[in-house]
Amino acid sequence: MLLYLFCVYLTYTEIMKCDLYRLGVVIRHVNKALGDVIVVMAVSKDQESFLYQQVINLIRDMKLNGTLRPGDKLPSLRNLSAKLEVSVPTVKQAYIELERQGLVEARPKSGYYLKALQAESARPTRHSMTSKPVLVRKQSLIEQVYEGVHRPDCIPLGLANPVMAHPSDKGLARTMRRVMSTGGAKVMSYGPMDGFAPLKRQLAMRYLDFGLQVAPEEITITNGAQEAIAIALQCVAQKGDVIAVESPCYFGILELIESLGMMALEIPVCSDDGIWLDDLEQALKTQNIKACVFSSSINNPVGSYMPDCRRKRLVNILEEHDVPLIEDDVYGDLYFTAQRGMPAQCFSEKGLVLTCASFSKTAAPGYRIGWILAGKYAPEVKRLKRALSCSSSLLNQWTLSEFIASGDYDRNMHRLRQVLLCNKERMIAQVQQHFPENTRVSDPKGGAVVWVQLPDGSDTAELFHLALKNKISIAPGAIFSPTCKFNHCTRLSYGLPWNERLEEAIAVLGQLAKEQLKKAQ
Amino acid sequence: MLLYLFCVYLTYTEIMKCDLYRLGVVIRHVNKALGDVIVVMAVSKDQESFLYQQVINLIRDMKLNGTLRPGDKLPSLRNLSAKLEVSVPTVKQAYIELERQGLVEARPKSGYYLKALQAESARPTRHSMTSKPVLVRKQSLIEQVYEGVHRPDCIPLGLANPVMAHPSDKGLARTMRRVMSTGGAKVMSYGPMDGFAPLKRQLAMRYLDFGLQVAPEEITITNGAQEAIAIALQCVAQKGDVIAVESPCYFGILELIESLGMMALEIPVCSDDGIWLDDLEQALKTQNIKACVFSSSINNPVGSYMPDCRRKRLVNILEEHDVPLIEDDVYGDLYFTAQRGMPAQCFSEKGLVLTCASFSKTAAPGYRIGWILAGKYAPEVKRLKRALSCSSSLLNQWTLSEFIASGDYDRNMHRLRQVLLCNKERMIAQVQQHFPENTRVSDPKGGAVVWVQLPDGSDTAELFHLALKNKISIAPGAIFSPTCKFNHCTRLSYGLPWNERLEEAIAVLGQLAKEQLKKAQ
Repeated sequence: MLLYLFCVYLTYTEIMKCDLYRLGVVIRHVNKALGDVIVVMAVSKDQESFLYQQVINLIRDMKLNGTLRPGDKLPSLRNLSAKLEVSVPTVKQAYIELERQGLVEARPKSGYYLKALQAESARPTRHSMTSKPVLVRKQSLIEQVYEGVHRPDCIPLGLANPVMAHPSDKGLARTMRRVMSTGGAKVMSYGPMDGFAPLKRQLAMRYLDFGLQVAPEEITITNGAQEAIAIALQCVAQKGDVIAVESPCYFGILELIESLGMMALEIPVCSDDGIWLDDLEQALKTQNIKACVFSSSINNPVGSYMPDCRRKRLVNILEEHDVPLIEDDVYGDLYFTAQRGMPAQCFSEKGLVLTCASFSKTAAPGYRIGWILAGKYAPEVKRLKRALSCSSSLLNQWTLSEFIASGDYDRNMHRLRQVLLCNKERMIAQVQQHFPENTRVSDPKGGAVVWVQLPDGSDTAELFHLALKNKISIAPGAIFSPTCKFNHCTRLSYGLPWNERLEEAIAVLGQLAKEQLKKAQ
Repeated sequence: MLLYLFCVYLTYTEIMKCDLYRLGVVIRHVNKALGDVIVVMAVSKDQESFLYQQVINLIRDMKLNGTLRPGDKLPSLRNLSAKLEVSVPTVKQAYIELERQGLVEARPKSGYYLKALQAESARPTRHSMTSKPVLVRKQSLIEQVYEGVHRPDCIPLGLANPVMAHPSDKGLARTMRRVMSTGGAKVMSYGPMDGFAPLKRQLAMRYLDFGLQVAPEEITITNGAQEAIAIALQCVAQKGDVIAVESPCYFGILELIESLGMMALEIPVCSDDGIWLDDLEQALKTQNIKACVFSSSINNPVGSYMPDCRRKRLVNILEEHDVPLIEDDVYGDLYFTAQRGMPAQCFSEKGLVLTCASFSKTAAPGYRIGWILAGKYAPEVKRLKRALSCSSSLLNQWTLSEFIASGDYDRNMHRLRQVLLCNKERMIAQVQQHFPENTRVSDPKGGAVVWVQLPDGSDTAELFHLALKNKISIAPGAIFSPTCKFNHCTRLSYGLPWNERLEEAIAVLGQLAKEQLKKAQ
């Protein structure tokens, strides 16, 4: 590994035309057999521009010619300094300037990463609030979306299944084998209705990291977060009640509200900071809101992140009005921010927060294990879980509890976050490159999906069908709102193994969107 | 094995006092080291009574002195004939007479088995019907019962978990290991919302045995039968609606009805033939029944079996009134009758039957996999399942589908039925022996529980607490009725590995019941 991180493979013609050459490319090694040339870049002390500016140009050029791609890690300060024969502070100065320009991002204890260049102004726009709660009628399109994502020949851009980007199946399978060997007939039997005690203890210990003291009996294990939210809703509201949801809102929640005969009231979500609290306050004054379901940490589909101070205010506002908050925290652990957002639970004083989460986005979607930490509703939640579906799979709970205890869960999740962050940058860059002009895209602070807002005149419900013919599944905007607000938007998942086939699918999708737009004009 | 099946171990004093001796016991082998004597019985051709009568007396005596116990298999005709040096027809005549007397039972392709002697008149009595639907309020006692059965130091006579009597964990674990090896990351992922297609195909094939053609899309896989029934109820009824249930009724269904805010109307169950159809017809005329939940094949807690002709009439009556039947068929496969009862589904003409079942009573309670075959409600059921809890564990579904395909499932279940039938006889005999005089006990035609009706003055809710102090858990009668009809009854499970500890527990329980009764008088 002569040149370590900073070796790049370029064809000779690429070198001739690229700006790197202008900076003084030194050819160290020619490998004609491969038809490639390995090049190393250097800065020139004779040039007029500052050295750090030359480093900046170098990085910019490498991005331009595709050598460095959004999501990639930049060389370490020490490495690049040695390679270019400039001082470490010079490289550092260059990186800091690039970060200021929004081109790279510093990640604690990890280094600098290339971002997809995206102006704030290119984020999805704020939409107006619908003032009335509505009955949800979404099931037909949702059904088709589900069928699309499960077609084995389709690229599932419509499926939010981040674990696919970095599967933990081998570690889990190993753990499960061990559990079956040691547990015998016991692991195949019924577990306690409210969950396997060691798993609940593990979860309680994790909440302790946020300073939250949780007794295991306050936690009820469920069949994934979807059941957790279903139980929470049935616990605090009934048919006909108004439930405030995010807008856009994860369609699974809308379908659930529809199934329970409740009404949805949409509160707009800022593409950066979570729901607009002013809109919520306004709605609380004018509407008889019975409960809220918000993904108060990392949102799905926008990927916004509500800062702790705002989340605290959210809880305060709601508890002031005695309105329970059902917190969908499934993406909370997949944060790209410096720290994980604190569960809203931490700010609750009246016990009106019901935190719902699961292992489906972080380890084992197919295990169907989630949980609910239900504040003052804990006893009622426990009864409802028992009545509605008895217990959850003991073997799966047991395996997960061992998986967490061994540290494998956190190690896997750490790596998963890195992969997702890299994928996110690539996804944004791909969308910018291939989608119609004036397409806006969210910049997720975590999770596995971006929210793409296409120019007016686009129809993503139609695009969904066109894409399906091209063996690409997407989640069209229409299913994220009971009032059909987002028919020019779509959610795309980057929670997938990144490869050329995926890139091609995004390009095809962009092309389809362009053609559709041309027809509409 | 010199003497094969018919060798019996008796101490010498036992031989001296027992009637066998009178028939001419031939001592073939004395094993004084063990303090036991191995004896072989013979009939005497010099005696005045018929030879077949002597065989009858021999079997009776062996039962009396505990050599043969209820549930045990009698020697084969050929074997006994050779051993006693009488003709096969003589033994046959004796066995037929014993069967007529109700002491033994012939099982097709298997042989003759000793039954617990029980007069029809000793079955639980018919109780009157409550004419009004009521709101259910049972949760506190049910909660305590659940806590009791999951205490590791308790003998769980209150838990209906028949798989414990013959666990299939080794075969299942083997299958699961194979599935994990071949399926890789895929088995850990989300499965289709309505279930894993190969499992649904297996289930459809099983229904074909009853002449029922089911398309896999008519089946939705659920988290056990409890979720299946919960979905079925939410599909056909809503808060405040009247649901007809069996009386006594499995408490899980009562708790579910309570959770959904529905009303329960109790229809008495005959301890032999399932619900009383006349009572049902009467209720349909006077009450606005929205749906019925009946375990129309094998009932829990009584263990009655509704013959096919009655089940057909049940479906006809209900469809005539356009009332959906939610059929709880979890025990259907654990039949002791010559054939399995046909699912009520087979008799439906209007598609108003929703069959709910699971693998929890036959293979893997901890997998939490059930299903629902929902007639004309299938599309709505599919949507509800998706909205309420997303999909069910793919790995568990996959494993079960392979387990069925390999034939292991049916082989295990065959053996499980044999063990349960043997246990049932032992349980009845134990109750007869140890419980207060005039205790009545049901004679289950399948399943894993008996329904014990104690004499007036007994209080099984109190007995439950007394038993718990003695590390025995029971399911007191009160939780099987929303109107507290059965406080002198209890359900006891024989779905357990039969051993001395269990027998002792039943004896202790009987003693506690006797003491309680004495105090009350």
